Amino acid sequence: FAANEMAPHMAEWDQKEMFPVEAMRKAAQLGFGGIYVNPDVGGSGLSRLDTSIIFEALSTGCVSTTAYISIHNMCAWMIDTFGNNEQREKFCPDLCAMQKFASYCLTEPGSGSDAASLLTSAKLQGDHYILNGSKAFISGGGDTDVYVVMCRTGGKGPKGISCLVVEKGTPGLSFGKKEKKVGWNSQPTRAVIFEDCAVPVTNLLGAEGEGFIIAMKGLNGGRINIASCSLGAAHASVLLARDHMCVRKQFGETLSNSQFLQFKLAEMATKLVASRLLVRQAAVALQEGRPDAVSLCSMAKLFVTDECFSICNQALQIYGGYGYLKDYAVQQYVRDIRVHQILEGNDFLSLLRQNS
Amino acid sequence: FAANEMAPHMAEWDQKEMFPVEAMRKAAQLGFGGIYVNPDVGGSGLSRLDTSIIFEALSTGCVSTTAYISIHNMCAWMIDTFGNNEQREKFCPDLCAMQKFASYCLTEPGSGSDAASLLTSAKLQGDHYILNGSKAFISGGGDTDVYVVMCRTGGKGPKGISCLVVEKGTPGLSFGKKEKKVGWNSQPTRAVIFEDCAVPVTNLLGAEGEGFIIAMKGLNGGRINIASCSLGAAHASVLLARDHMCVRKQFGETLSNSQFLQFKLAEMATKLVASRLLVRQAAVALQEGRPDAVSLCSMAKLFVTDECFSICNQALQIYGGYGYLKDYAVQQYVRDIRVHQILEGNDFLSLLRQNS
Amino acid sequence: FAANEMAPHMAEWDQKEMFPVEAMRKAAQLGFGGIYVNPDVGGSGLSRLDTSIIFEALSTGCVSTTAYISIHNMCAWMIDTFGNNEQREKFCPDLCAMQKFASYCLTEPGSGSDAASLLTSAKLQGDHYILNGSKAFISGGGDTDVYVVMCRTGGKGPKGISCLVVEKGTPGLSFGKKEKKVGWNSQPTRAVIFEDCAVPVTNLLGAEGEGFIIAMKGLNGGRINIASCSLGAAHASVLLARDHMCVRKQFGETLSNSQFLQFKLAEMATKLVASRLLVRQAAVALQEGRPDAVSLCSMAKLFVTDECFSICNQALQIYGGYGYLKDYAVQQYVRDIRVHQILEGNDFLSLLRQNS
Amino acid sequence: FAANEMAPHMAEWDQKEMFPVEAMRKAAQLGFGGIYVNPDVGGSGLSRLDTSIIFEALSTGCVSTTAYISIHNMCAWMIDTFGNNEQREKFCPDLCAMQKFASYCLTEPGSGSDAASLLTSAKLQGDHYILNGSKAFISGGGDTDVYVVMCRTGGKGPKGISCLVVEKGTPGLSFGKKEKKVGWNSQPTRAVIFEDCAVPVTNLLGAEGEGFIIAMKGLNGGRINIASCSLGAAHASVLLARDHMCVRKQFGETLSNSQFLQFKLAEMATKLVASRLLVRQAAVALQEGRPDAVSLCSMAKLFVTDECFSICNQALQIYGGYGYLKDYAVQQYVRDIRVHQILEGNDFLSLLRQNS
Repeated sequence: FAANEMAPHMAEWDQKEMFPVEAMRKAAQLGFGGIYVNPDVGGSGLSRLDTSIIFEALSTGCVSTTAYISIHNMCAWMIDTFGNNEQREKFCPDLCAMQKFASYCLTEPGSGSDAASLLTSAKLQGDHYILNGSKAFISGGGDTDVYVVMCRTGGKGPKGISCLVVEKGTPGLSFGKKEKKVGWNSQPTRAVIFEDCAVPVTNLLGAEGEGFIIAMKGLNGGRINIASCSLGAAHASVLLARDHMCVRKQFGETLSNSQFLQFKLAEMATKLVASRLLVRQAAVALQEGRPDAVSLCSMAKLFVTDECFSICNQALQIYGGYGYLKDYAVQQYVRDIRVHQILEGNDFLSLLRQNS
Repeated sequence: FAANEMAPHMAEWDQKEMFPVEAMRKAAQLGFGGIYVNPDVGGSGLSRLDTSIIFEALSTGCVSTTAYISIHNMCAWMIDTFGNNEQREKFCPDLCAMQKFASYCLTEPGSGSDAASLLTSAKLQGDHYILNGSKAFISGGGDTDVYVVMCRTGGKGPKGISCLVVEKGTPGLSFGKKEKKVGWNSQPTRAVIFEDCAVPVTNLLGAEGEGFIIAMKGLNGGRINIASCSLGAAHASVLLARDHMCVRKQFGETLSNSQFLQFKLAEMATKLVASRLLVRQAAVALQEGRPDAVSLCSMAKLFVTDECFSICNQALQIYGGYGYLKDYAVQQYVRDIRVHQILEGNDFLSLLRQNS
Repeated sequence: FAANEMAPHMAEWDQKEMFPVEAMRKAAQLGFGGIYVNPDVGGSGLSRLDTSIIFEALSTGCVSTTAYISIHNMCAWMIDTFGNNEQREKFCPDLCAMQKFASYCLTEPGSGSDAASLLTSAKLQGDHYILNGSKAFISGGGDTDVYVVMCRTGGKGPKGISCLVVEKGTPGLSFGKKEKKVGWNSQPTRAVIFEDCAVPVTNLLGAEGEGFIIAMKGLNGGRINIASCSLGAAHASVLLARDHMCVRKQFGETLSNSQFLQFKLAEMATKLVASRLLVRQAAVALQEGRPDAVSLCSMAKLFVTDECFSICNQALQIYGGYGYLKDYAVQQYVRDIRVHQILEGNDFLSLLRQNS
Repeated sequence: FAANEMAPHMAEWDQKEMFPVEAMRKAAQLGFGGIYVNPDVGGSGLSRLDTSIIFEALSTGCVSTTAYISIHNMCAWMIDTFGNNEQREKFCPDLCAMQKFASYCLTEPGSGSDAASLLTSAKLQGDHYILNGSKAFISGGGDTDVYVVMCRTGGKGPKGISCLVVEKGTPGLSFGKKEKKVGWNSQPTRAVIFEDCAVPVTNLLGAEGEGFIIAMKGLNGGRINIASCSLGAAHASVLLARDHMCVRKQFGETLSNSQFLQFKLAEMATKLVASRLLVRQAAVALQEGRPDAVSLCSMAKLFVTDECFSICNQALQIYGGYGYLKDYAVQQYVRDIRVHQILEGNDFLSLLRQNS
């Protein structure tokens, strides 16, 4: 699927900044709209390990699109896991079929992924919460239908946070300008703005004050998913570099005869294997609910997004001048996965809390 | 000048892919069109060290534009140094004033910067050379007026290469499509194609067979120039990162209170200083014609383009999600100087020839 | 066992350069003398994965001793695997009980681990091979009883190599001086010298000309074993660094409050986990005879010995001045595993042969 | 001098842990006992830049001995700079001639180089200060004659610190056991212990409370000196690696034909040049009293000791198994300069204070 339905379009989606709705709906027909969502609401019911393998494969075809699909999956999983049956039945089938698309709204302009200090307020007024505030860097923002929003219903700190599902078209919900980005161009990114936005209390996921826990549990899976998308880019880049080395000549010999580049390629392949093992192990740990799962997810995210960027960037270097041209895919892998090192930046800190 | 006439426009030049002719002509009024060209033909007559300092300063305002100016300067210097008086007087004044722009045509599609094996042929026919072949990745190609072309007038190897100046409008001179690139977008890049292109013998720089030596001497300066452009980007990025750390809050504190980021910034500053010293020393060695100049230029190019990319890339990381947005300059520095690591890639080998 | 019978002595074994025969015999009582040797000749019959886990654990107690034990195991495995029943019954029981100790004799003074070009000759004369030549860097050399020797019985190249077992006391077998080394001091290292050394043909392992294959198969396991020893050192060093950070004060706070050091420690732990996963996967692949086993063993060796050295070396840095004193174990881990990066150096090349 | 009087002995001094008093006195005859001490008290009156060049040269012969000489020079400079004429005339001539040897006593067991929090107390009693406390990791401790001691005469913090000169033989001055170290074995390291040690007030350098400033000024020079010693080791190691590559064969070719190792060597040489430029620039800045001198000294220390360790360690790797043997010098360079990365560890922090 990645090779046939995505890879041929990834350059166009990037350069024209197209959100490939139709391609994603085809993916959903294969069950990729709710991979680890329960089957009774339309999900595929697969494990985290399966999920990781799928996202790695899809991202060889387009990192940016796959990364969005992974966020969409995380949202669907949140509703499936923390929602009641009405909520599950209302939202999940459409999300799993990608008839509707979801966005995850955690980050705020002033606070990165520091969930505990978020400011967006939700005040209960009758049977609605009135939301005010704004969210930044929202993947899909403006083009999607369902927003899973972390907001403050109580006092300061993590215990005052709740999770609301906001539907597109709700009065008071608006969007910022579409951001110009280095990569991830097949998914629109906008600020999401709430001005006296009234959301029915029936859209509260879990209980009041459970938002932080929901967010954190979502992030664990999110980290593995993003790391898996980095794996796909790195895997594709290693293959591209190898192929390029076999055809490109320099000083009368193909690059593949260069001992220096042979060693580079071996090193890249080694780091790729180490990265993949870390992701797989974290996925298994998360699936099994092992106590070290949070640490392993953070380690995987940290190590894998760094090493895979380095692998792609070295592949670009092996391509020489061609690597810098948008006619060749390797530069897009580099641009697209650069943001994976930034996202959920504070996993670093959560990792340390585990260790100390 | 960089701050007033370039920096405010660098994002626009990048996103609209504009070749900023007017801004460059203003730069030429300050003497930047022929910095190390002799004053009798309009140059500024400054040293390599001065040149390095100027390019570092300009590139804080726009790396891509400055890098083109540095190539233009190299071409003007080649004509000034290896041309006879008619040639010098014909071309240099217009180039120094940037009334005309120059491009350097060495690289071919199949051979990287491996000058010795180039294929573009120039056959003497009466008082013209007939050129056939093509050049790839030519900065300014199509938009510039004067092409300094390495071509083969004799047998295989470096001794068969000569250097011809080809003027725009010469029949048989055409250009490929404008390349889409990761960065360096304010300078157009095109293939330059010669099909029975007749160039008067009076446009031969130096004697037949001297082309390789001219190319190599040009590259020494070119390496320092490109390294200087990397310095400017890294310098600007360190300042941006520092400023961002002083305003951006995370977990209730400004980033500047993060010990980890303080250390990162110190490390970046240290690498910047080391990089600058290497460039300056190489510039002095080249100016004085010291025997280790070639080695030092290669070392400077290798170390500085790598370390400065790393500095800019770390600055982007410090910016977090904002670093990935085209509204902020740091990502443009990263994209623009990425190509500096690729250009003149085989300096690595020339460096080794020195050592072994 | 590592904590009780080895760790308390590792500094003394190092500084007095003692070969801890008694401690190793105790280890053999636990089955560590022939871990992956078949039970019918006294081995423990465990898998490569078990072996890796055991060597990791033992090396926390003393890297140098464990590394020797791993070489001894490899020799016992070679005789068990490639020997006939007489040979197996003659040598294996004593080796598994560590009543006798074994050394592996591949490297020659002029050829590193480049097995295919070795020079030590074995000429058939009646029912004996007459050996001439010398082997360098032999672990245990002089203090051990059984030497598994690669020698040339035929023509040039890998097909001329055979594998002979030479027993201590054989006339013509002598040893060089005991080498002074940076680490690995609990195992003596000497040259092994053959001067008209007559070895009975019954000591030939496998057929003539099979030596190279035996050596290569031995090295695959050897690489995992050595990598496992690196894991133990790195694991112990991470724990030491963490404990040191919790007690040592600087600027009025314990080091554990330093964000910079917290990040370092998290990074070290992440690299340790990635290293461990690579080793484990290679061990499983080797056990199952998978076609990618050779690549995975080489990757594991390359990545793990480098990263674990780096981990130990960073732990030493966290220790500050104390890390440089022989009173503290961390410096011994650093010195001991430094040689793991060197051993079997050309796995790098075999890795590339796989890739290309 | 380094080649004739030091290099031939460096292995012996290391392995027998000899403090080479006679060799150092010969060095003093060349003016190396007080290189940047004023000539009126026996010094050579040279600049910091000269000093750096001298220490780099000497350390090619023996890092450990040169590092001690550099500490001795720092002490002599402190007395020359901050002492009154009686003090200068009493101590400097003997120190410059190395008839007496000096030790610098700043670090305490619990506080690293965190000078401001030191605990050793000096209470004025008549015309003597009574010292109590202990100093750790003192180079030369026990074998030297003159101890420049930072101690607390006043309240908490940097302003309570003074600098006293304590002579060997003073009652109440004793020493800990000689430490066993990874390297730096030609200089004895001991704790220095003060128990009601009475030091005449005439031995106070500068005024009471000036100790911290004296210590900090000493450290600036100390950092350049130590960095210079790292340069010498790295320079010697690059040459050793190059020579080894030219003679050692692997797979039928000398290592010098390995493209991979050629690149490694070029990279090592590049880092060496960058390191040297940083040290030289810092030395000039310090000599000229430039405001950025402290930053530049810290940067030089940080970058140079790290990169030079890496250079030496890579040279060891190129040596293969031989690199691990004490018969070859490269491992001693690695062991000796390892401690340079640790010493004065908190320069890191002072560097940041400059930047923020």
